[in-house]
Amino acid sequence: MIWTSRWPGWRGIVVVTAAVFVLDSEPVRAEGWPTVPDELFTALGLTRDVSASDLYAAVAARYYDQAKGYGEGKFSEMWEPTALARYLDPGLYQGREALDFEVTSADCATCHETVTPGWVHAANRSVHADLQALRALPADDPRAYKVEHLDEVEANLRTMGKLAEGEVLAEVACADCHMGVGVKAGNHKTDLRLPDGAACGQCHVRQFSERESERDTLTWPQDQWPAGRPSHALSMIANYETAIWAGMAEREVAEGCTMCHTTQTSCNQCHTRHEFSAAQARKPEMCANCHNGVDHNEFENYMMSRHGLIYQTNGDNWNWEAPLSEAFASAGYNAPTCQTCHMSVNGEYSHNLVQKVRWGFNPMPSIAENLDHPWFQARKELWVATCTQCHAPSFATSYLDMMDQGTIQGIGLVQEADAVVKKLYEDGLLVGQADNRPAPPAPDADTHGGFFGLFWTKGNNPSAVEHEYAQMWEQEIMRHFKGLAHVNPGGFTYSYGWSELIGSLARIRDEDTRLREGAALEKRIEALEAAGGD
Amino acid sequence: MIWTSRWPGWRGIVVVTAAVFVLDSEPVRAEGWPTVPDELFTALGLTRDVSASDLYAAVAARYYDQAKGYGEGKFSEMWEPTALARYLDPGLYQGREALDFEVTSADCATCHETVTPGWVHAANRSVHADLQALRALPADDPRAYKVEHLDEVEANLRTMGKLAEGEVLAEVACADCHMGVGVKAGNHKTDLRLPDGAACGQCHVRQFSERESERDTLTWPQDQWPAGRPSHALSMIANYETAIWAGMAEREVAEGCTMCHTTQTSCNQCHTRHEFSAAQARKPEMCANCHNGVDHNEFENYMMSRHGLIYQTNGDNWNWEAPLSEAFASAGYNAPTCQTCHMSVNGEYSHNLVQKVRWGFNPMPSIAENLDHPWFQARKELWVATCTQCHAPSFATSYLDMMDQGTIQGIGLVQEADAVVKKLYEDGLLVGQADNRPAPPAPDADTHGGFFGLFWTKGNNPSAVEHEYAQMWEQEIMRHFKGLAHVNPGGFTYSYGWSELIGSLARIRDEDTRLREGAALEKRIEALEAAGGD
Amino acid sequence: MIWTSRWPGWRGIVVVTAAVFVLDSEPVRAEGWPTVPDELFTALGLTRDVSASDLYAAVAARYYDQAKGYGEGKFSEMWEPTALARYLDPGLYQGREALDFEVTSADCATCHETVTPGWVHAANRSVHADLQALRALPADDPRAYKVEHLDEVEANLRTMGKLAEGEVLAEVACADCHMGVGVKAGNHKTDLRLPDGAACGQCHVRQFSERESERDTLTWPQDQWPAGRPSHALSMIANYETAIWAGMAEREVAEGCTMCHTTQTSCNQCHTRHEFSAAQARKPEMCANCHNGVDHNEFENYMMSRHGLIYQTNGDNWNWEAPLSEAFASAGYNAPTCQTCHMSVNGEYSHNLVQKVRWGFNPMPSIAENLDHPWFQARKELWVATCTQCHAPSFATSYLDMMDQGTIQGIGLVQEADAVVKKLYEDGLLVGQADNRPAPPAPDADTHGGFFGLFWTKGNNPSAVEHEYAQMWEQEIMRHFKGLAHVNPGGFTYSYGWSELIGSLARIRDEDTRLREGAALEKRIEALEAAGGD
Repeated sequence: MIWTSRWPGWRGIVVVTAAVFVLDSEPVRAEGWPTVPDELFTALGLTRDVSASDLYAAVAARYYDQAKGYGEGKFSEMWEPTALARYLDPGLYQGREALDFEVTSADCATCHETVTPGWVHAANRSVHADLQALRALPADDPRAYKVEHLDEVEANLRTMGKLAEGEVLAEVACADCHMGVGVKAGNHKTDLRLPDGAACGQCHVRQFSERESERDTLTWPQDQWPAGRPSHALSMIANYETAIWAGMAEREVAEGCTMCHTTQTSCNQCHTRHEFSAAQARKPEMCANCHNGVDHNEFENYMMSRHGLIYQTNGDNWNWEAPLSEAFASAGYNAPTCQTCHMSVNGEYSHNLVQKVRWGFNPMPSIAENLDHPWFQARKELWVATCTQCHAPSFATSYLDMMDQGTIQGIGLVQEADAVVKKLYEDGLLVGQADNRPAPPAPDADTHGGFFGLFWTKGNNPSAVEHEYAQMWEQEIMRHFKGLAHVNPGGFTYSYGWSELIGSLARIRDEDTRLREGAALEKRIEALEAAGGD
Repeated sequence: MIWTSRWPGWRGIVVVTAAVFVLDSEPVRAEGWPTVPDELFTALGLTRDVSASDLYAAVAARYYDQAKGYGEGKFSEMWEPTALARYLDPGLYQGREALDFEVTSADCATCHETVTPGWVHAANRSVHADLQALRALPADDPRAYKVEHLDEVEANLRTMGKLAEGEVLAEVACADCHMGVGVKAGNHKTDLRLPDGAACGQCHVRQFSERESERDTLTWPQDQWPAGRPSHALSMIANYETAIWAGMAEREVAEGCTMCHTTQTSCNQCHTRHEFSAAQARKPEMCANCHNGVDHNEFENYMMSRHGLIYQTNGDNWNWEAPLSEAFASAGYNAPTCQTCHMSVNGEYSHNLVQKVRWGFNPMPSIAENLDHPWFQARKELWVATCTQCHAPSFATSYLDMMDQGTIQGIGLVQEADAVVKKLYEDGLLVGQADNRPAPPAPDADTHGGFFGLFWTKGNNPSAVEHEYAQMWEQEIMRHFKGLAHVNPGGFTYSYGWSELIGSLARIRDEDTRLREGAALEKRIEALEAAGGD
Repeated sequence: MIWTSRWPGWRGIVVVTAAVFVLDSEPVRAEGWPTVPDELFTALGLTRDVSASDLYAAVAARYYDQAKGYGEGKFSEMWEPTALARYLDPGLYQGREALDFEVTSADCATCHETVTPGWVHAANRSVHADLQALRALPADDPRAYKVEHLDEVEANLRTMGKLAEGEVLAEVACADCHMGVGVKAGNHKTDLRLPDGAACGQCHVRQFSERESERDTLTWPQDQWPAGRPSHALSMIANYETAIWAGMAEREVAEGCTMCHTTQTSCNQCHTRHEFSAAQARKPEMCANCHNGVDHNEFENYMMSRHGLIYQTNGDNWNWEAPLSEAFASAGYNAPTCQTCHMSVNGEYSHNLVQKVRWGFNPMPSIAENLDHPWFQARKELWVATCTQCHAPSFATSYLDMMDQGTIQGIGLVQEADAVVKKLYEDGLLVGQADNRPAPPAPDADTHGGFFGLFWTKGNNPSAVEHEYAQMWEQEIMRHFKGLAHVNPGGFTYSYGWSELIGSLARIRDEDTRLREGAALEKRIEALEAAGGD
């Protein structure tokens, strides 16, 4: 397929340009990227006086590095991309079959006003469409902070030689995003690109670097997760390297997983094209694009928490155009959103959302056992600082302790269930285990209550009791933890979480007794038969 | 009960009037009802130059035709309407016991301002209450399009002799809807009616005809569904002719089904009395009146899709007073609603919502097998046209293909389960099947995993494994499809749909093995007993 | 722990003051507390000419009376409060370890602007912060009614000697709520209090008395529930005296229950500190703080009912600043909220939400059997009056009848299941019952399908079939009833309620057959073994 041909990425355009400007020793930004964590500079061998051009070059180079999480990953031989894949991993699959002619940004608008009018209307409403209108905002407009953003973008582009000294950016036109910043025209068949994260990063160097720093700030002290994961920056490779995802025959169903894992490959998951409304991206529902459902119901828990219910009853009085740093002051928030808690560290907001992560998505014993390690303690203190924007430190601490203890109590139920199901598996007593248990598709391998059993079944694999257990460790304990973490009592006490885990454990023990009694009964029949055969 | 007496319907008032005007050869509307599909004219033996009066007469006559879906249906002998029924099927059950006095519309308001003040306040806020205010709207008001609607209504009424040439409609008063258009007074006991669809259709001929055309545009090429179904226009008869609905002893619970099936019998389900706000009817939550829950969770899937989340985060900036045709342009939508996709065909909006239906509510093998038939292909192309308002044609096509493939994959799981349960039923191995399986109430009949088993149980009918299977074919596969159709990845991958089907199939196979092993064990005991008896 | 020391409560401050003023024979309020039900006056031995000071003294004294529901309840020896408890029951657990210095309200704001800025910003937005701005509202402002409230508060305070004749309240400052009305300064360590319900009641005597009257108006004629319950006024004692709550080892999970049961101990659950927006408290989502989830899903049912969907589509046009009494008139509501139905009795609104309660949370046979008792009939008539604000009396009556019948039908299914599970328990046939059934923790005791089994499991207690049954009687029947009560057809017909009950009953009967067949089979083997031993 022509469109599956690999595309070299924006690095092809920008990295070289950057190299030129390094020699020019472009003046560095005085503030030294304060919202980009130290860990990124260390990982990339940079210092804080790096120019925008160099910073972008280094971050983009790693973004495109197959050894560091770019591309189809270690199971790539086992699956074929669907036709939809090029929209989900726009850097990876590019190219089109026809429309071999030159176009300018003006041509784009003219033609697409008919072909796909929604794009054009949305783009026309965006800040990108009229930077002059942005510059004209009165200083007391809540959006006035965007003028500083624009100044920063222009400074970035000057370090890259994309804008001359004193020159201002007139607009962000179609080709700037779809062909490269500053490109005025190109061939519709060969030059046009669906923008990936690095495409946005050309102008938004700071935000791109913040997001990419997630790889560096989430290095687990006891290797609970691979380095830099789970994070938005490495979400797509996490998808590609999930064994059952790679092994499933039903590629269209599997692509449902891919649809959420695009935060690595695009900025569009939170910043909806082509309007790119920041106000919209500040709302909790934007996070719900991915953070909903049976195994990570953050959205549901937030919305039903006191915080979320205040948002639902009062949020229409908050100023969504104001920057997050103004949330509790001039913007009038009287409750947090996803964004205010997860994007802030000590009052500073950035696009790195994992700097305070402790339990990391799925609460595991290996985390529970290490919560007093300094790495976890330091992060807990960052949470206390976040909560004390509106709560007493003693309240914050007591709730965070309760959340940890409640989570550990839930993990205990999962461990009890695991022991029961594992023993049944080892004793060969699972239904159909003796003669009707096909292995899951490669690269996966059989185990008791494996993740694969939530998406694949053949013969008696998984058995019913294993499916119940898989729901416990992969869904119920996560809902339990997410309910606790988002202060939704029903989410961890009586509707989800604990009460679900109790029900599942009771059914698993019931089944354990039943299977063992059945086996004993069969032995007695065998003995009778053997006796009868005497 | 007096109120169960049959009422002849608005046809009694209007059809005759219409007949008179046909003779007068009223000038026809030049545009020839462009939003009413050809199929309706063909079915009713009309041509596009038909007058409003004649069109209404023909559509209303069919609306009231018991041979064509009006009334209580083929199982009517088997059930009694509850006292609530007259509000759910207002054309069918009419009449009241008392209040035998003459009233005018002004009397209604005076008295009901005390008795039921909510009615009067809501009506006073409606467009109906002050047509002069409507006519005075400036041309650039987003509601100005309603003036054209009013012109059209007046033209309609002139063809019916309800309005003289040059006369304008002053208001729509209580009696216009509750006694007949133009009626000024009547008897509160004998003349008052709860308006049905045909009552609204007296003025809104075009919209009524569009809605009624659903009967004509959904004629399945391989008879997958009865002609004209599933549709809003025939929803009530579908309810009455559902066997378990008719057979259930618990009429009050059964009436819960009826409460949603009123789109045939009333316009009120979408156009809330007495305010009749069009802006309100444009919002997705209005569709959720019916389209929610375990077997048709369109609303939940939409709301959790990217489309719905954009609506939730940005919808308060959209102009809901603007007509749907302005949605993506001046009204500022940057995502679709239920209405923008399901009410449009090639950019033209109407009250026929089924012109692009392909999978039709419950994805069946008989649809899956015929997707390359021209009838289905033509409809798929209409979907591509809808999606390309905002998406590239290649994206639209690739997603629609993915949706079809994913649905087919889900159907495969249902078919596997069906084979297992059917065989157990045929082999007489279901729990309690031998001696404790009462038949469902007439007019239903026993089968394996029948629909009845979701609402009725007696003895061991349905058995647990059948109930699981019934949930698969009637709920899980539908959620799977609806998730795919509404682009909600969790809806078809990990939260609902596929992962639910996998769990159910695993449990069904587990039970199959267990029941067959149990039967084998019992045979061995019988053999031992027989041997012992020797 | 220092903070667990008991605090004497606001009565220590106010009751004595009140006593002084009784002797002064303060002039009584002419209106005689019309929104406070008779039952409260009777219960407290007061007459309607009681002064605000005396009324508050009597209501607060009962509020703090351990014999009448204050404090940790009858199981208090069995559990220890978590560190979070002092925030959930602020009257009970007070005190702090440090910060031993004098502070004024101005000091609070200065310091907490840095420590917990969210508090200060929210308080500054509240009506409390600027009473002069409130007094300056034009008469046609929807909030103008609050000026009357302020007048009433000032009149109350004058009866208590907190305000001199002719003196007006300047502001409600930090110390007024956290140290006592009129207190200007105090010690941060020893004088500071987290406000409980009685703290708010110092000024808001009427509202506090209305809320506390819930204890008096809900006295069940056949003792279906303890007197005054279930209600907001006695919610915390209901929590403390739930056996499994008291007995659970996992205190942090149990505290999840406590988090909702704070309506007795605080006003903050509905009136969010420190903004105290009345508009916010009028919105349905505020009730969802507690009224959501598996066993009392009022919120979900409301939101998916026609009423709730109208709120969702049109609510942004309603004037939330207007008082509830204006809802259907000038405020423009065209559907009810939780508040409009549950806070009103014959058109009069109050903070007693249980005056029309009939089914009381969990539909029991003992209620079903007594629905024609005058106590229940009178309440049903109050409901008809509520519904007829917008519906015909005949509609209201027919729906309320349907709701009752449908609920009774659901109870029938629960009773059938109870008989099956109880018999299995009595026959000793439950899985593991013979040798692996530990008792639940004290103060709970073993029973078939007990409430404890939803939160605790050990060995084979509860067995799987009991867990299923517990879900029926404690969750599914409640969802069924709540769906009926809130007019959400899917909530009682096909998504929740009835169809869930049917599925559970089918599975319970399946298990019954299976367990009895298994026992019979084992008997046959025993017989064979005995025969073989001959």
